Amino acid sequence: MQIGLDLGGTKCLGVALEFDPGRPLEVLAEHRATTPVGTEAILDMMAAVASHLAVTTGATQITLGVGVPGLITLDGVMRASPNLPGMYEVNIAEEISARLHELMPEILVDRVYVNNDANCAALAEWAYGAGRGSQDLLLVTLGTGIGGGLVLSGAPYRGRHGFAGEFGHMVIDPEGVPCPCGQRGCWERYGSGSGLAYLAQQAGLVLDGPRGALAPKELRAEDVVAAARAGSQLAVDVLKDFSRWIALGLVNLANIVDPEVIVIAGGLAVEEDLFMPEVRRLFAELLYEGTHRDHPVITVAQSDHRAGAIGAAVGATL
Amino acid sequence: MQIGLDLGGTKCLGVALEFDPGRPLEVLAEHRATTPVGTEAILDMMAAVASHLAVTTGATQITLGVGVPGLITLDGVMRASPNLPGMYEVNIAEEISARLHELMPEILVDRVYVNNDANCAALAEWAYGAGRGSQDLLLVTLGTGIGGGLVLSGAPYRGRHGFAGEFGHMVIDPEGVPCPCGQRGCWERYGSGSGLAYLAQQAGLVLDGPRGALAPKELRAEDVVAAARAGSQLAVDVLKDFSRWIALGLVNLANIVDPEVIVIAGGLAVEEDLFMPEVRRLFAELLYEGTHRDHPVITVAQSDHRAGAIGAAVGATL
Repeated sequence: MQIGLDLGGTKCLGVALEFDPGRPLEVLAEHRATTPVGTEAILDMMAAVASHLAVTTGATQITLGVGVPGLITLDGVMRASPNLPGMYEVNIAEEISARLHELMPEILVDRVYVNNDANCAALAEWAYGAGRGSQDLLLVTLGTGIGGGLVLSGAPYRGRHGFAGEFGHMVIDPEGVPCPCGQRGCWERYGSGSGLAYLAQQAGLVLDGPRGALAPKELRAEDVVAAARAGSQLAVDVLKDFSRWIALGLVNLANIVDPEVIVIAGGLAVEEDLFMPEVRRLFAELLYEGTHRDHPVITVAQSDHRAGAIGAAVGATL
Repeated sequence: MQIGLDLGGTKCLGVALEFDPGRPLEVLAEHRATTPVGTEAILDMMAAVASHLAVTTGATQITLGVGVPGLITLDGVMRASPNLPGMYEVNIAEEISARLHELMPEILVDRVYVNNDANCAALAEWAYGAGRGSQDLLLVTLGTGIGGGLVLSGAPYRGRHGFAGEFGHMVIDPEGVPCPCGQRGCWERYGSGSGLAYLAQQAGLVLDGPRGALAPKELRAEDVVAAARAGSQLAVDVLKDFSRWIALGLVNLANIVDPEVIVIAGGLAVEEDLFMPEVRRLFAELLYEGTHRDHPVITVAQSDHRAGAIGAAVGATL
């Protein structure tokens, strides 16, 4: 039995499944909990979710996969996690192992595998989703920021230290918008949900909120999307600009990695009709020597909100 | 016996060796020829160089590796080569095989392997040079442009179609200098030899040539290097700016690939004392969450001018 957890800033989702590459996905059980504040409380909560799933499914032996945001080493240490304040240098694998042993001494835990959440999403798409059967898959999550994951030569690729796939901090304009990471002009300042809101502010998009016109700083990606769907030409133009930023980043990644398939995931992926046609058009136009080469397939994630948890469970078996 | 060829714009170098990962490099023979004009003449010349090496070393059976500039498919077709005019859609593997069969019917040719020249340089550094024993190596050639090659998870990585490693066309400033490739602000417009010359022109560096002051357009990277070595503060400042562009590109690559070792190769690598200390300093400063992670080793190629030919021979055995 594989159990997978996906830890987010607000909640943690767990799934139980038996991974078999030859069979379709069947999630045997799901469980979720709210993400508390503080490292100890978060570790306790994750162990409790995993333990609940192991016990309720009647498992006698499990492998546990954990997807978490941030820089994760190959042996399961969270070195840094910008979205989980204070979580630096936490040995997640060891801490959860110890807790599981206390919570459920009768169930054997073969392995606790920890990976970055976007890497896990890439594994879910590779095992069950839009990249099924591909050898070289590159996944980009478009959420508040941009995350990424790689499967290369038919196997998960995490880099020498586990930190590959930080596509969002590729600098795409060195004199551009300051990024909380300390650099300027990171891709995620333009090509993510917060990037879309920024581009809308810059374009002077004015939208009504529940209490009158939203201040530029209150604009969110959802508002821009809703305005475009409601027919605002300015919002449509902002999404066109947004598409150009996404295409630029994808072209860079394709020039570097030459993947077979690029999977777009994350919260914005469901709005693909608003920007992906333009992204695909520009990608084809901008790719190096694009008329003389095969292009990657650019597609959208098929997994639902459980991708991170499912991918974590898959990764734990590899 | 492995024979490796490295085709450049002006000449083709060939080497013969017996590749054994456990033994130090021993080049058994070398041969070179001038690169002629025209696809047929180039193919004839390459076959002649390989045949000469096979015959003079007394081989009865060879594998041939060929390193060529441009986009090369996994089955040895040159799709495009910006530096070899007119060489589009040339099946190099097949064309050279046929020629070798005519030139030396008595010698068995097991395989003709064709790869991008920078990919070959990466294989040489991995097998015999600065990246020996590494699992994840990223090589950057700083020449007239920027080329690149990857060894990932202990094996050559060429991407799904063979086109991985085109680092020079990573866009690093979308409103920047136009590139002959059609984009703007490609990394090689700033971080290569021609980039160094461009930055010197922009900075107003004036240098004397054999017939008085050089026009800004006559400035070459070598002139800037010589001026810095002769004590020009402006040339030193230009190299500092150049270092920042190189560091930016390397940081992007490290955020994406997280290699174990980054090898700097190409014509400018021998001038490393003029810019690599600053590149290393900035790299450490700019890497995403750099204080919370292991960094790749950044080093300089150990192979001599034969790297491409040696790497082609190595690649042919893998």
